[in-house]
Amino acid sequence: MPRYKVTIEYDGSGYVGWQRQSCGRSLEQAINQAFFRFTQTRCPVVGSGRTDSGVHAWGQVAHVDLPKRYPEYMVRDAVNAHLRNHSINIKEVICVDPDFHARFSAIKRSYIYRLYNRQTCPPFERGRAWHIRYPIAVDAMQQCANVLVGTHDFSTFRDSACQAQSPVRKINGVHFTQNGPVVTLTITGQSFLHHQVRNIMGTLNLVGKGTWTVDNFEQAFQARNRKAGGPTAPAEGLYLYQVDYP
Amino acid sequence: MPRYKVTIEYDGSGYVGWQRQSCGRSLEQAINQAFFRFTQTRCPVVGSGRTDSGVHAWGQVAHVDLPKRYPEYMVRDAVNAHLRNHSINIKEVICVDPDFHARFSAIKRSYIYRLYNRQTCPPFERGRAWHIRYPIAVDAMQQCANVLVGTHDFSTFRDSACQAQSPVRKINGVHFTQNGPVVTLTITGQSFLHHQVRNIMGTLNLVGKGTWTVDNFEQAFQARNRKAGGPTAPAEGLYLYQVDYP
Repeated sequence: MPRYKVTIEYDGSGYVGWQRQSCGRSLEQAINQAFFRFTQTRCPVVGSGRTDSGVHAWGQVAHVDLPKRYPEYMVRDAVNAHLRNHSINIKEVICVDPDFHARFSAIKRSYIYRLYNRQTCPPFERGRAWHIRYPIAVDAMQQCANVLVGTHDFSTFRDSACQAQSPVRKINGVHFTQNGPVVTLTITGQSFLHHQVRNIMGTLNLVGKGTWTVDNFEQAFQARNRKAGGPTAPAEGLYLYQVDYP
Repeated sequence: MPRYKVTIEYDGSGYVGWQRQSCGRSLEQAINQAFFRFTQTRCPVVGSGRTDSGVHAWGQVAHVDLPKRYPEYMVRDAVNAHLRNHSINIKEVICVDPDFHARFSAIKRSYIYRLYNRQTCPPFERGRAWHIRYPIAVDAMQQCANVLVGTHDFSTFRDSACQAQSPVRKINGVHFTQNGPVVTLTITGQSFLHHQVRNIMGTLNLVGKGTWTVDNFEQAFQARNRKAGGPTAPAEGLYLYQVDYP
């Protein structure tokens, strides 16, 4: 059974998230169904990780074992044809070594979080960014973000339902960029805790709007307690941007 | 009756265009209805020009006379509240001189046309760009576009249903920019013929994909005959970007 690495883009609005749930449509399920329709065989995809309901992807990665070898472009185009009623696109399909694993082989993951910072939200950004009306101080948010780089206990930003064994994670980089009203946070690490990026963003935003100082942020981070952190930023601004492999 | 200048953004997918039609919902109608709900008075908006079904706007301008004076922000927010089920956003409302006219006072209009040039189209670009799979030569398209600058007879790019008295128009500038797979044409002029930008883009694309040479394009333009031109590019890539006033 040849193994394929599949890079996937999706608009997560209207999905219950990557993983199958008791009700609602999941991204995984839609993609599995498309592979089934193409191969007429059950060949479940294995994702690099889950994304929550409403979270998007520019570069989710999954692996899948197909019953026989097909040209890569043919897998991509055939599965896309079966996904045409979904807001999901197979960007790339590559035949890989059978020991490639979308989740366990991943060495780095990058997320982006998009803010739209203007009085009103253009229709093109609805569901695709966190619309923030009040002016935000991007410099102050960047100053806080710098503190997160390195290996730390991220309990302050860890959802209570998180199943990871340890709250310690390594963050390689956190950068804000601004292009007019679009403020983008890029955050890179080996792996993330449940809601980690959204909780970081929700807390950074308290500093951005001036409710908190940079010191308040650092104290909350050092408290290693979710109750010390700010609210969870909405799912609609978050994108799984890239997953890297050796 | 105080007059207001209203700047409007919309995703034109699912609308019959700016102007009311015998069936289907129009942008003008949706906006008129929102103003009616706010003021409880019929106060029809007058747009800077029509946009076709599926064409978007980052900067459509209209004027409207309201029964009494309101703070500008209040008009914006109240009308937006009534537009929440539409992919329309009132970006700005400014109280203007009673002789301001959205259509007749306009001195310059800018359109952008977006191409998404990659094998597959991400979900975020569906309905918001012309997806072109084959590689396109942007330099050759720019070379052709340069020929359009100035005052010319644009019959080659004029729709047969165009009601303008003259096919002569002045183009101030035509520029391509590229950012990864996103290729954007920006075109500026005082006014445009019916389908002019889409017919120009459809014809430039023949050069982009190598079916036509730059010479072929120039000959077609000089023929001053719609039959000599290329096909009409799809509506979904076109955006009314900006309307300028003295």
